[in-house]
Amino acid sequence: MKLFSSVNDVTDLQALVKQALAAKKDPFANQHLGKNKTISLVFLNPSLRTRMSTQKAAMNLGMNVIILNIDKEGWALELRDNVIMNGTTVEHIREAAAVMGEYSDIIGVRSFPGLKDRDEDYSESIFNKFVEFCKVPVVSLESATRHPLQSLADLVTIEELKTRSRPKVVLTWAPHIKALPQAVPNSFAEWMCKADVDFVVTHPEGYALSEQFTEGATITTNQEEALKDADFIYVKNWSAYEPYGAVTNGNEDWMLTNAKLNELAPQAKVMHCLPVRRDLELSSEILDGPRSIVVHEAGNRVWAAQAVLKQMLEAL
Amino acid sequence: MKLFSSVNDVTDLQALVKQALAAKKDPFANQHLGKNKTISLVFLNPSLRTRMSTQKAAMNLGMNVIILNIDKEGWALELRDNVIMNGTTVEHIREAAAVMGEYSDIIGVRSFPGLKDRDEDYSESIFNKFVEFCKVPVVSLESATRHPLQSLADLVTIEELKTRSRPKVVLTWAPHIKALPQAVPNSFAEWMCKADVDFVVTHPEGYALSEQFTEGATITTNQEEALKDADFIYVKNWSAYEPYGAVTNGNEDWMLTNAKLNELAPQAKVMHCLPVRRDLELSSEILDGPRSIVVHEAGNRVWAAQAVLKQMLEAL
Amino acid sequence: MKLFSSVNDVTDLQALVKQALAAKKDPFANQHLGKNKTISLVFLNPSLRTRMSTQKAAMNLGMNVIILNIDKEGWALELRDNVIMNGTTVEHIREAAAVMGEYSDIIGVRSFPGLKDRDEDYSESIFNKFVEFCKVPVVSLESATRHPLQSLADLVTIEELKTRSRPKVVLTWAPHIKALPQAVPNSFAEWMCKADVDFVVTHPEGYALSEQFTEGATITTNQEEALKDADFIYVKNWSAYEPYGAVTNGNEDWMLTNAKLNELAPQAKVMHCLPVRRDLELSSEILDGPRSIVVHEAGNRVWAAQAVLKQMLEAL
Repeated sequence: MKLFSSVNDVTDLQALVKQALAAKKDPFANQHLGKNKTISLVFLNPSLRTRMSTQKAAMNLGMNVIILNIDKEGWALELRDNVIMNGTTVEHIREAAAVMGEYSDIIGVRSFPGLKDRDEDYSESIFNKFVEFCKVPVVSLESATRHPLQSLADLVTIEELKTRSRPKVVLTWAPHIKALPQAVPNSFAEWMCKADVDFVVTHPEGYALSEQFTEGATITTNQEEALKDADFIYVKNWSAYEPYGAVTNGNEDWMLTNAKLNELAPQAKVMHCLPVRRDLELSSEILDGPRSIVVHEAGNRVWAAQAVLKQMLEAL
Repeated sequence: MKLFSSVNDVTDLQALVKQALAAKKDPFANQHLGKNKTISLVFLNPSLRTRMSTQKAAMNLGMNVIILNIDKEGWALELRDNVIMNGTTVEHIREAAAVMGEYSDIIGVRSFPGLKDRDEDYSESIFNKFVEFCKVPVVSLESATRHPLQSLADLVTIEELKTRSRPKVVLTWAPHIKALPQAVPNSFAEWMCKADVDFVVTHPEGYALSEQFTEGATITTNQEEALKDADFIYVKNWSAYEPYGAVTNGNEDWMLTNAKLNELAPQAKVMHCLPVRRDLELSSEILDGPRSIVVHEAGNRVWAAQAVLKQMLEAL
Repeated sequence: MKLFSSVNDVTDLQALVKQALAAKKDPFANQHLGKNKTISLVFLNPSLRTRMSTQKAAMNLGMNVIILNIDKEGWALELRDNVIMNGTTVEHIREAAAVMGEYSDIIGVRSFPGLKDRDEDYSESIFNKFVEFCKVPVVSLESATRHPLQSLADLVTIEELKTRSRPKVVLTWAPHIKALPQAVPNSFAEWMCKADVDFVVTHPEGYALSEQFTEGATITTNQEEALKDADFIYVKNWSAYEPYGAVTNGNEDWMLTNAKLNELAPQAKVMHCLPVRRDLELSSEILDGPRSIVVHEAGNRVWAAQAVLKQMLEAL
């Protein structure tokens, strides 16, 4: 594997899930692959799970890890072409990415969307420029429109914990006070559409995701109907795709509670990519109760990353 | 050892000191213990010595190290329960600590007190929540009321350099311009009260430490009397325990000088946990002279941490 | 080698260049040297290339690496002697450096000049205090007046790519909007003056470098004359040495373009230490064209650092 930016970069989804579960069983079996190989994890934005789990996956594989918080330890990058750099940006992404490639066998990059210019965000220009200029394999640590390591961990978790062969998986919008990216729901949707699950997306009016990510999914604005008999409920807020980045009030009742689940989906396991705002996005009673698998899911981030890095190391 | 938060977590104090000194003699003897084990060092506050010495101790033991400056590389944690998270905190400590535990065999946590609400600080709620939710062994990298790795290094230093079997050890308050935590003096006091030393605490009126840490110590507001014939003088500022966090002026003459030592304790060695403000807390003439052992003491931080981590690794 | 702060610390320049090129061919040949040795990379200022390349060089040599962004992860250091520390600085460089030395076999330090007090900057007081107080070998990661790891990488690059035995190397001033240090041009000049090259420095009136770095160089304010038949053109902005730190306008036409090179030095390779401001300091057409070797040059930073660290490890 030379690039891991979306589900489309995966040749065999089931094989990748199996490799993640194999890594979970035997984490240190492939340390010869990473010996004397360096991964650089480059953060243009904050990170907790992705940072720690990817570092750990790389170390499990015997790799050396360089971490760069580019904005804090370095400086602001210029991302536009054809500008005279007489402002506040100190280095162009063309040089920065190329130089990082000189020091790295693999690069991981995290870069959030601006949520102002949809065309720019959805062109994935920052991530794609890193890929273009660094000239080494790149793994997305979350980009403007996708978070594939999260989605792979989600799929691994579902495969691990499902109790029937084709589980019903529901992605439900949740309330928030800030405008959040669509990266996690986009990505989760496009992975679920390729997985062997019955996939439903539910959200209030005005929060439809871009159709390119939900092809094949059942989509409804009726949360009750969607949740019915779900095996896995993926809770996540996102801001509107149209008008881009908008947040509308009045959907507070979309927050999941035990009462809803007891009525509609008593067996359901509840997922969230984290961080989650308690009692705004998701109720404490669920997070602290037996239905929540959010910590288990976060733990699987290591094995998802390890499966991807293994395939990248094998292709070096 | 599953927890290292205070002297009360130590089964055999002398054995731990001996292990620290053994690590100093042969730093790399136990690398098999740490192989493929990961320690995460989580900082909610700045750190120099603790950060570097604990990382080095872990590497000496063959461990992998993940460092997380949570506020700068991640985001603000919610520490209170039963709040709707619609403010500035992005993730609850319940999820954050649990997830960190998924990625770590051992976690180190640094979290300073707020110095506003004494009950909250002295309940050690932040540190204790980490311990409760992360579910792996935790080593304190300084908490609201204690700094046990510092105290162990201090005891190791005294054992190393003492010239009589039961030395006189004096903890003396020193001037400062800011309100500092009581963690270091609390911790030093409770360790010294359990060690085989003659222990005296001296401070101006109004700076009495909480009695739970000084049981068995001689306490006096007469610095001259306290210093007399001391073998080790531990210099440290702290703010008042009552009224909590208060700083009163007019105690500038509590700063230690060579004149005082020449008269009262000519053989004394001078200790400080560092960082120290020169010529405010402690005179340059002492810091630059032969009495100061502050750098040697800081060096022993590695071996203190290594002894603790060794016991934790053995108990995994 | 016990100190790497300038070309004057190098016993045999050609041997060091050869070792860098040998490391490039066989990066992992000397991992026994670094086993159980710790390098601490201490940053008082931002860094991208130096940070990543030195970490990578150390890991290639089998070393453990501690990274400390002292201002962000620690606190402000007091650099002056004989001051009562009742202001904003928390720790004196005397203690901080000494303690870092306790935890490190080798220390790397980056510290930029203030560009206000020339005597202070040119006395290299911060860097020299680190060296004095830490008591272990120190490698400069760029100091107030020099950037020797950059200069060694530059020389390695020239040796690698030269097409005649004594190439013509031109250091040309370039426009910028900020006052930049003289460290890179100073350092490049003093290395080139000791190398087997025909070395020319060109800059507008008012930008003469300190003579101590340019002894033996041809110096001219006529850029056209300087560039003629150059083999390597090193582009770099710097602020004035006299009046210190000054930036004057009106030299925008000093920016290198393909038109200039086509006319004056069609075979020239163009170098820059990076970061570079596109179309202000150096034209995009050159950076994106075949003449630019800036990324290759940056890649050589690893091998320069590795050659220096190897010599330091051998001398431990």
